[in-house]
Amino acid sequence: MTHPLRLGIAGLGTVGVGVVSIIRRKTALLSARAGRPITISAVSARSRNKDRGVSLDGYAWEDDPVALARRDDVDVFVELMGGSDGPAKAATEAALAAGKDVVTANKAMLAIHGHTLAERAEAEGRVIRFEAAIAGGIPVVKALSEGLAGNSVTRVMGVMNGVCNYILTRMESAGLPYAEVFGEADRLGYLEADPTLDVGGIDAGHKLALLAAVAFGVRVGFDDVELEGIDRISVEDIGQARDLGYRIKLLGVAQMTARGLEQRMSPCLVPAGSPLGQLEGATNMTVLEGDAAGQIVLRGAGAGQGPTASAVMADVIDIARGCRIPVFGQPAATLKRAQPAKSVAPAAYYLRMALQDRPGALARIATVLGEAGVSIDRMRQYGHDTPTAPVLIITHETTRDALDRALDGLGRTGVLENDPVAIRIENV
Amino acid sequence: MTHPLRLGIAGLGTVGVGVVSIIRRKTALLSARAGRPITISAVSARSRNKDRGVSLDGYAWEDDPVALARRDDVDVFVELMGGSDGPAKAATEAALAAGKDVVTANKAMLAIHGHTLAERAEAEGRVIRFEAAIAGGIPVVKALSEGLAGNSVTRVMGVMNGVCNYILTRMESAGLPYAEVFGEADRLGYLEADPTLDVGGIDAGHKLALLAAVAFGVRVGFDDVELEGIDRISVEDIGQARDLGYRIKLLGVAQMTARGLEQRMSPCLVPAGSPLGQLEGATNMTVLEGDAAGQIVLRGAGAGQGPTASAVMADVIDIARGCRIPVFGQPAATLKRAQPAKSVAPAAYYLRMALQDRPGALARIATVLGEAGVSIDRMRQYGHDTPTAPVLIITHETTRDALDRALDGLGRTGVLENDPVAIRIENV
Repeated sequence: MTHPLRLGIAGLGTVGVGVVSIIRRKTALLSARAGRPITISAVSARSRNKDRGVSLDGYAWEDDPVALARRDDVDVFVELMGGSDGPAKAATEAALAAGKDVVTANKAMLAIHGHTLAERAEAEGRVIRFEAAIAGGIPVVKALSEGLAGNSVTRVMGVMNGVCNYILTRMESAGLPYAEVFGEADRLGYLEADPTLDVGGIDAGHKLALLAAVAFGVRVGFDDVELEGIDRISVEDIGQARDLGYRIKLLGVAQMTARGLEQRMSPCLVPAGSPLGQLEGATNMTVLEGDAAGQIVLRGAGAGQGPTASAVMADVIDIARGCRIPVFGQPAATLKRAQPAKSVAPAAYYLRMALQDRPGALARIATVLGEAGVSIDRMRQYGHDTPTAPVLIITHETTRDALDRALDGLGRTGVLENDPVAIRIENV
Repeated sequence: MTHPLRLGIAGLGTVGVGVVSIIRRKTALLSARAGRPITISAVSARSRNKDRGVSLDGYAWEDDPVALARRDDVDVFVELMGGSDGPAKAATEAALAAGKDVVTANKAMLAIHGHTLAERAEAEGRVIRFEAAIAGGIPVVKALSEGLAGNSVTRVMGVMNGVCNYILTRMESAGLPYAEVFGEADRLGYLEADPTLDVGGIDAGHKLALLAAVAFGVRVGFDDVELEGIDRISVEDIGQARDLGYRIKLLGVAQMTARGLEQRMSPCLVPAGSPLGQLEGATNMTVLEGDAAGQIVLRGAGAGQGPTASAVMADVIDIARGCRIPVFGQPAATLKRAQPAKSVAPAAYYLRMALQDRPGALARIATVLGEAGVSIDRMRQYGHDTPTAPVLIITHETTRDALDRALDGLGRTGVLENDPVAIRIENV
């Protein structure tokens, strides 16, 4: 095959410009590796007359991404617009219907419509690749769907949202409250237009659901991901965690249990010295566990122009080389519907509460926990000059059900100033 | 494609048995992922009547791996015998000549004959895959040749010999001398028949040369790898390194410089808190640096039945799926001959020497270093009740040439009891 692979690129933001730049700068290298030239036929973006710092000479322009997706001179539709619905989905569907392969960085679209899109792609004999949707430059989809293809995957974990990790590490290093660091991140342009996508854990939840689909051969089920954002994490929690030898990370965990598929994306305490605990700033880490390979840890830049464009190019080159695998690693028709299971795996929890300073209050707390079946590993009440006493509890391993009973009971004691903060401890 | 992919497996040691076991246990999973059944037609090993703990029912037996490689009912020849020449090479050549694809875990064969074998494979339209040859279950060949295919790779590093890492971490934790831990490893069956393959850095050097070929698009050049084993590392060095905040690892580094390709596999001091410094036991780590993706770190089990069989299966499944890429990621004819460059990148060095206890001796040392252009960052002479004084020096960054001049000069001062120990410091 020496005829070129011709791309149509929709979306010329940071990632799109990165892809154009790689293709313009590395013509010979890409051709040698892909076995054929990789060219761009046409591009599309919202604004045509914007200086993007890269030449678009020689590429046709389309205002409408759907028209781009249908062009006769496009073999692969590269979708870098984002958004779960709207133009991204319409253009992706148009591309598949027109017999084009699709490469996308769009986790939201795939987390929500991935199964339907996979069925369409397969009906047309086309592929959809999405390495760039998860963990930036880390080839984690490839590692999982190809590198571990001989394994029964037992668990997948990851810190996969750079913004959240930036906020948490910045709160720790500067000792600043969440709201202030959030404001900083906003001013620096780190946040999505809708910041709850990041800090609410939704973006990371999309990524986890996609990895879980590949890992366990199930239909992607974002609705079944237990989501918890980082907005309730206080600088006190971060400090307490550090004193206990932990750091707080927005951690995703997907594992198949006897009761079904557990998927959660939530702040967790992880050992400060562990690979996950040592992550700084926007770096991502994924942990893949297979019954044969054991634990594979991958670390790298989770976002940014170069890393994300690198992932897009990996998918493009795979297609150029003729490597075509089903969207989620096996035919869509063979993907099972997973039975969702809520936090089945027991864990220790960190609890922080503000206790009214009166006789018997601490005893009430301890009693309620005991009645719920939650036993206490460590408990501290701090010196204070406020009307409420800060109390910190580390539980022994317990189920989420027992913990929820305990939290419910604690809320009804009448001795707490607010709902307790409960953060899972993952000793990974 | 629903016709089965039929394997012929030569070599039924740990890894071969692991592969047979996966194929027997995971029939449906493999078929779903590969898009077709994966079956075994025939096997071959030195001894037929040995209980390997896995059933070989239904597989034809061949005493001669060359005959196995040529069988009509074999699509992929899986070479798990080892050895750079002899039966492994003969059978691989026979397989290619008979139009079979090859999957191998044989780093020695490929590091030495890889280029010639790649040319043959490509002439026959066949592929040779070798994920299992490097870093066990970590899909590092895939990450490099596919995941980073859109990158100009700038550097590849890794701790890739589990035995060496086991010996070094055991020396540290138990405070035992090299010879004693080496004996332990021997009794535990960890060592190759020729242990210099491991402790001399040869095995790890083979792996580095293969990664460098893929990373930089060059002909594999094991002869150009600067090799240094771990046998000169003393428990004192390990202790001193720890006091300085470092650990000693057998680290491979390959990087393209203006003067040519630098490839070295040698003991290095790495920061104790860094991902490389934290590696324990037989765990491997590879670090890939690309101009777009940035730094990608991969960690996992570097050896063992499950991990290595997992890597073999990844290659087999790729072939079953129709993913066929050139042996070293681009056609053999396009691989350049690299100009070898000896340790061009400057570094700080750790020097330890036994100084004769007489006036002016330390001054001599300092003078010789200064004359060679090596400046001293830190120097310590320890209290002692021996005729020689232990002296420890950390240099500022220097070139290997300057260091070699200094070592040569030190040897001629007549004030040292032995040749100095010099270990590179890599702040990675």
